[in-house]
Amino acid sequence: MEQYNSKEAYLSDLENRAALPVGFRCAAVTFNFVPAEKQMNAKMNLSLILADKPTEVFGAVYTKNSFPGNPVLIGKERLANKQIQGFLINNKVSNVCTPGGYETACALLDKMGAELGIDSQLLFPFSTGIIGWKLPFADMSSALPSLAAGLHNQSFLPLAQSIMTTDSFAKLRSATAGEGRIVGIAKGAGMIEPNMATMLCFLLTDIAITREELRQALAACTAQTFNAISIDSDQSTSDSAIIMSSCVKPSPGLKVFTEALQTVCAQLAEDVVRNGEGTGHVMRVTVEGDIPETVAAALGKAVVNSPLCKTAVFGNDPNVGRIIAAIGDYLGTNAIPVDQSKLTLTMGGIEIFKNKQFLLDTGKEQQLSAYLNDCKLDTAVKGYPQHNKVVEIGISLGGKAMRRSVLGSDLSYEYVKENADYRS
Amino acid sequence: MEQYNSKEAYLSDLENRAALPVGFRCAAVTFNFVPAEKQMNAKMNLSLILADKPTEVFGAVYTKNSFPGNPVLIGKERLANKQIQGFLINNKVSNVCTPGGYETACALLDKMGAELGIDSQLLFPFSTGIIGWKLPFADMSSALPSLAAGLHNQSFLPLAQSIMTTDSFAKLRSATAGEGRIVGIAKGAGMIEPNMATMLCFLLTDIAITREELRQALAACTAQTFNAISIDSDQSTSDSAIIMSSCVKPSPGLKVFTEALQTVCAQLAEDVVRNGEGTGHVMRVTVEGDIPETVAAALGKAVVNSPLCKTAVFGNDPNVGRIIAAIGDYLGTNAIPVDQSKLTLTMGGIEIFKNKQFLLDTGKEQQLSAYLNDCKLDTAVKGYPQHNKVVEIGISLGGKAMRRSVLGSDLSYEYVKENADYRS
Repeated sequence: MEQYNSKEAYLSDLENRAALPVGFRCAAVTFNFVPAEKQMNAKMNLSLILADKPTEVFGAVYTKNSFPGNPVLIGKERLANKQIQGFLINNKVSNVCTPGGYETACALLDKMGAELGIDSQLLFPFSTGIIGWKLPFADMSSALPSLAAGLHNQSFLPLAQSIMTTDSFAKLRSATAGEGRIVGIAKGAGMIEPNMATMLCFLLTDIAITREELRQALAACTAQTFNAISIDSDQSTSDSAIIMSSCVKPSPGLKVFTEALQTVCAQLAEDVVRNGEGTGHVMRVTVEGDIPETVAAALGKAVVNSPLCKTAVFGNDPNVGRIIAAIGDYLGTNAIPVDQSKLTLTMGGIEIFKNKQFLLDTGKEQQLSAYLNDCKLDTAVKGYPQHNKVVEIGISLGGKAMRRSVLGSDLSYEYVKENADYRS
Repeated sequence: MEQYNSKEAYLSDLENRAALPVGFRCAAVTFNFVPAEKQMNAKMNLSLILADKPTEVFGAVYTKNSFPGNPVLIGKERLANKQIQGFLINNKVSNVCTPGGYETACALLDKMGAELGIDSQLLFPFSTGIIGWKLPFADMSSALPSLAAGLHNQSFLPLAQSIMTTDSFAKLRSATAGEGRIVGIAKGAGMIEPNMATMLCFLLTDIAITREELRQALAACTAQTFNAISIDSDQSTSDSAIIMSSCVKPSPGLKVFTEALQTVCAQLAEDVVRNGEGTGHVMRVTVEGDIPETVAAALGKAVVNSPLCKTAVFGNDPNVGRIIAAIGDYLGTNAIPVDQSKLTLTMGGIEIFKNKQFLLDTGKEQQLSAYLNDCKLDTAVKGYPQHNKVVEIGISLGGKAMRRSVLGSDLSYEYVKENADYRS
């Protein structure tokens, strides 16, 4: 169990895994600007990740939102390109459905390419932040030379910090596979119920595999990692996960590579939930039974997305009736037949519901309260996760043919506060 | 526009419409008890609504939740009965999936019937409150004689107050139709996204129509009233709306009756949202276009249920990008094809989005902020609604073949607070 008692201890742990894979450089700069849409002083971080040479081995998954940001539109087009070399990333403004936003993003990549002396088609854009605002083109352009000048091949940690918006701590994970490594960073703290990829996630590896294998591995990993988390049920217009390889280390085989990638993605996904806006508890709902995978996943989401389940967990209040209500809401609304007499419900391993009845008494009430309290994250503590504990909720519908877990967070004052005036 | 500046002013307005229809009596009592599941002092209100004579003219709609409360199970069975005469209602404990809960509810009706000297099959049970706790049978039984003794044919208002749980104010509406009247009361402040009926709603009328007409009218009214509201997207295990008629006044015809019933239901539905747990703004999302009714209704729900849209409205922050994100999330996830170039979005009549682009500037930003501020309800004010203003959000998808409105509430600190430890 990872336990941290300060931001420094956490960052030191991250630094231990933060070395860039061989063949990559990165840089980040910060500047101030005034948005065209609101009189205020805003701050933007601009980040660049660059492979030393163009590579054919890359892949990405993007949001299914019908109004994707311009970077998503451009990225989807460029997925068909022969090669890639880098990612240009900004926070604060997401460049979604803005007048001229597509052209602005392309023009920035052109300028970046010129600055680096490479074909701008080798660059992919990523933006996250407020939806509806325009990118501050002039300010961003002015920052590009210093971005190019700052490239280094050391730690990935400054990039993990630079892509943050309301994230309270940086998220960086790595794994080794044979002689090579996979290192990933992610950002995302609100508007998070990825449906295809996640918020923003950048994965780098030096392991030599083919483009097809890489894309296959990425697709296989996202379903049970990024696509199995939800902070607030809102799927962003900008969700993206992208990976590229410098291919300088020998491959340990696709299976080993995929397992290492799965580890990195699963850990980043859990980090994203733990760092959700105002997250006071991480919940994992595990659904098991002789049921279709879609039902298992959706039922888990129904529980982690129920505001009443979320607020009860936040309050360390084992109001477990709300879990049954959420399960019944999902099953009833979607007319999914299950044998109710086989349904069992547990929290922290403690049996709550069986044979169509609650199993509650004052002793169990105290046990469950203590369990929730023990899993609590202090939302006032910023800059690092205090521990890795998870509130485990188990739903069994009879049989063991399918088993899926969904991660989610509770619903706290802090979440409301952060989102009631996010832009100020 | 109804505007109130005190609880007294509001209750006085309610009293003006609170006379029971001819042929009905009601009563309410309160007592304290200690739940079997948690060491605490709890208070329960027990309410009785009784027709002077058994009537064949009644109808009800119930929750679609797969784990309905025992009162819902019993009520659904008794819908086939030849006659009805009354409703026995308790708050605080909802009697859902409790050991012996079905038998307990029936036993209470038997005792109530004996006390009243009528067949207990003429009574329908209703319970709302904590899910998973058992009804305090002995305490409830002891309260039945005073309930029977308290029956009167005057104001319905004490009943509207007695059925409340976390409701901050009583909800009572009436309409006349010809020589007769329809009077309804409702309770509900959380776990509210009715899918078939609503929370608890009791409707009484003295208008003589047939059972078939009455059930037809109730079904017609609920789709666009109770089924078109959502406070927190959680569909309760206890949602019920029931109506009975004493049939002592001549009928003005089914059309006029249905219109009057629709008025009462629509007003009660809006009252329920305005009195949602911690509601700081009421939102109405109106979706229009050449689209199926199911899409129009679901798209409206997607916006009013988006935590990010809700928190922005709570903060009087016109972060309208989140509305487009929520629309795109719903359309994309459900693979619903729309011509995006025809989509327009308005807030308070102000155009925000058109031709696939946002139409935002600093002037509009200020206008929208002022609009949201004007529609605000002070969540600290308890006991009455301050006004009837609504944040109007308009989504047009091209064409006018279909038009559906959904009412919802914002997401406030108060909501989290009320639900983080509801049971204490």
